[in-house]
Amino acid sequence: MKAELVLIGSELVLGRVPETNSLFLTRELAALGISVGRRTVVGDDEGEIAAVLKEALGRSPLVITTGGLGATVDDLTKRAVARVTRQRLVLHRPFLEKLRQRFAGRSGRTGRRPGRLPRRYIEQAMIPSRAQVLENPIGSAPGLSLGFGKGHLIVLPGVPREMRGIFSASVRDLLKARVGAAPPLVLQVIRTFGLTEAQVNEAIRGLAKTWPGKHLGTTVGPDGVDVYAAVPLKAGAAAERRLRNFKKILRKKLGEAVYSEAGQDMEEVVGQALRAGGLRLAVAESCTGGLIAHRLTNLPGSSDYFDRGVICYSNQSKADLLGVPKDLLLQFGAVSVQAAAAMAEGVRKISGAHLGLSTTGIAGPAGATPQKPVGLVHMALATDRGTFCQEHRFSGERAELKHRFSQAALDMVRRHLIRKKDAASQFYRHSLPR
Amino acid sequence: MKAELVLIGSELVLGRVPETNSLFLTRELAALGISVGRRTVVGDDEGEIAAVLKEALGRSPLVITTGGLGATVDDLTKRAVARVTRQRLVLHRPFLEKLRQRFAGRSGRTGRRPGRLPRRYIEQAMIPSRAQVLENPIGSAPGLSLGFGKGHLIVLPGVPREMRGIFSASVRDLLKARVGAAPPLVLQVIRTFGLTEAQVNEAIRGLAKTWPGKHLGTTVGPDGVDVYAAVPLKAGAAAERRLRNFKKILRKKLGEAVYSEAGQDMEEVVGQALRAGGLRLAVAESCTGGLIAHRLTNLPGSSDYFDRGVICYSNQSKADLLGVPKDLLLQFGAVSVQAAAAMAEGVRKISGAHLGLSTTGIAGPAGATPQKPVGLVHMALATDRGTFCQEHRFSGERAELKHRFSQAALDMVRRHLIRKKDAASQFYRHSLPR
Repeated sequence: MKAELVLIGSELVLGRVPETNSLFLTRELAALGISVGRRTVVGDDEGEIAAVLKEALGRSPLVITTGGLGATVDDLTKRAVARVTRQRLVLHRPFLEKLRQRFAGRSGRTGRRPGRLPRRYIEQAMIPSRAQVLENPIGSAPGLSLGFGKGHLIVLPGVPREMRGIFSASVRDLLKARVGAAPPLVLQVIRTFGLTEAQVNEAIRGLAKTWPGKHLGTTVGPDGVDVYAAVPLKAGAAAERRLRNFKKILRKKLGEAVYSEAGQDMEEVVGQALRAGGLRLAVAESCTGGLIAHRLTNLPGSSDYFDRGVICYSNQSKADLLGVPKDLLLQFGAVSVQAAAAMAEGVRKISGAHLGLSTTGIAGPAGATPQKPVGLVHMALATDRGTFCQEHRFSGERAELKHRFSQAALDMVRRHLIRKKDAASQFYRHSLPR
Repeated sequence: MKAELVLIGSELVLGRVPETNSLFLTRELAALGISVGRRTVVGDDEGEIAAVLKEALGRSPLVITTGGLGATVDDLTKRAVARVTRQRLVLHRPFLEKLRQRFAGRSGRTGRRPGRLPRRYIEQAMIPSRAQVLENPIGSAPGLSLGFGKGHLIVLPGVPREMRGIFSASVRDLLKARVGAAPPLVLQVIRTFGLTEAQVNEAIRGLAKTWPGKHLGTTVGPDGVDVYAAVPLKAGAAAERRLRNFKKILRKKLGEAVYSEAGQDMEEVVGQALRAGGLRLAVAESCTGGLIAHRLTNLPGSSDYFDRGVICYSNQSKADLLGVPKDLLLQFGAVSVQAAAAMAEGVRKISGAHLGLSTTGIAGPAGATPQKPVGLVHMALATDRGTFCQEHRFSGERAELKHRFSQAALDMVRRHLIRKKDAASQFYRHSLPR
């Protein structure tokens, strides 16, 4: 089955924040075997909402809306729905009773006079006459479910937690009953770092024909190049085999650059490898400014392999916190292979961790010299087998560069851990003039 | 003038990444006085793209598309455009010549035989017969500009840098010539932290009628509650005065919770206040894991007021790096007002900074006890006037909690710096049993 999404809210059309409710809904629908063909984003304008709804219901058997519901936005979506589906808004007494109870409970806590429901809440209980109310386990705005002709319309609030709450409480089961045991659409994401998009495209060019699904493509960003492929996964061994085979070919073509075959972030892959090896990592960050530590600690349980890090922006702090010799910084500069190595060794020593990782570079826009341009980064990994160093030159703006630097540094750890297991693969080691 | 956006790309309809090109385009169009009424996101499907384009051109005088262009995606958008506007695709010789030169230059560097343009590049030079080619300063896919009936269609590639590059190189001027000196749409964003959305809504309820623009509303997230308001700013003192007045009323109603009247992030506001005061801040992060330092160092020139920080996840690291007494950690626990204060004082001492900021809390999902639930955070700010502490209980998932913790900690610094200037406002200080 095909679905369409309609995302409603002025904040979404003003260019400040990206719309993200559709990400959750698309993934949830895919798991039910429902694909999302298109989505429309529209502001809080009743006429415009009604026009979009009418078109969508004329095209698609399932339409899901988010936003424009609730006490503060005058229930524009509900009125537009009533208009398009030609229903009156009628007072839904059971729902009003629930609102009253909810409000009384809250007033009790805040010491206000109980039982007095403000007018705008009463308006929330006005529901299109043939709609089914979907309970909101988190907030007050209800979801709605309506049949319309041969189609089906689901109306959800825009606050992400409430939207997810109603979906999980009732919409998922409601749709499951409608579509039956449809095969889920499986999105495969194979992530790489260290190759250009052209190189990855070259590698997958021949595969497009053999790939059984649709949407085989690549995206590029500060995380690297991702290969994605969507396929309606028919139950059965043949499809699974083809999928495994596809991944095997990709692995062969892209080699060590593949850091995840399951859409994971680099920090997750590195965290798993550290945990598997029983290793601890400490970080000494200059140009990444805490981002590597932040990424590592985004994962639950990261204290198993990460217990400390230092951010040393100034030369003085590199000397104070890590014991980097001031002479070295004066002779080679803070952005140098020597400084990176000394930082990594310093943080390994003060922490007693198995691995010490460092970054020092120029995130810009200021601070560059002809020899050391914006985008230059030195990084080092201190290990029990010596210190390994890398130098990269990336392009982009400050935030993007910080992310690329952190990604390259984490990738250095990943490749080190892979190679530890596979003694046959070659080692990279820069000589360090001191 | 009203515009519509059509965002094309399979990666956008698969639920993995949010669509963000529309943010740039909406802001740029607003500056030209053009508002975006709706936008549609659609996959790489020629029929679907053609259908969306036909509808959009029937509704709006200006339609801008991104994506579905270029060598790797079979130029679906271009073919759909040709179909909808009833034009043939013809070989555009000047553009082909440019492609050839570009490719020859690149082959020269890679050592391939020069001058042999692969077939898929030649296809890029097939252009709808009446379209104007817009040069791409960064990549090979060209932008297009076409009149259609009374409307205007602009076609841009999906890679953000290329899309932005073409817009800046030609589209902006092209549109400026069309719309003339239209008053820009000004989006005002007033940001608050420390109030609930209900409180902020209560404060602005009466203002909706006096506000001269449209789209007065609020959004809520880990950064706090934002009030946003869009207005077509007619040139002239009256409109400016009304805007100033609006901000003044908001400031009065929302008080110290307002951290920016210009849509800035908290780290930017804090950074400016530190710089203005000639102060340096050092951080000791446990539960925020480097996020505060990362946010502070996202700003160019942050080394003026930030030179170091430590991330101390384990008790051992709190003792080693900051000199927090182990007895204190054993007696009160690492998540305690005592630990927070000792961490802040420790990092202030080892850094010699004017201010020492610390966080220690439970980001979850594990690590909670009945007394110390997920979402609990203690934070402290060590200053020359003593150490100030705060305790918060937030809800949300791990990533959201880390962000809220960091936002509250930065807000503590902000309020401290405000109050320094304004001696009349009250001070908060927790007693610290030791």
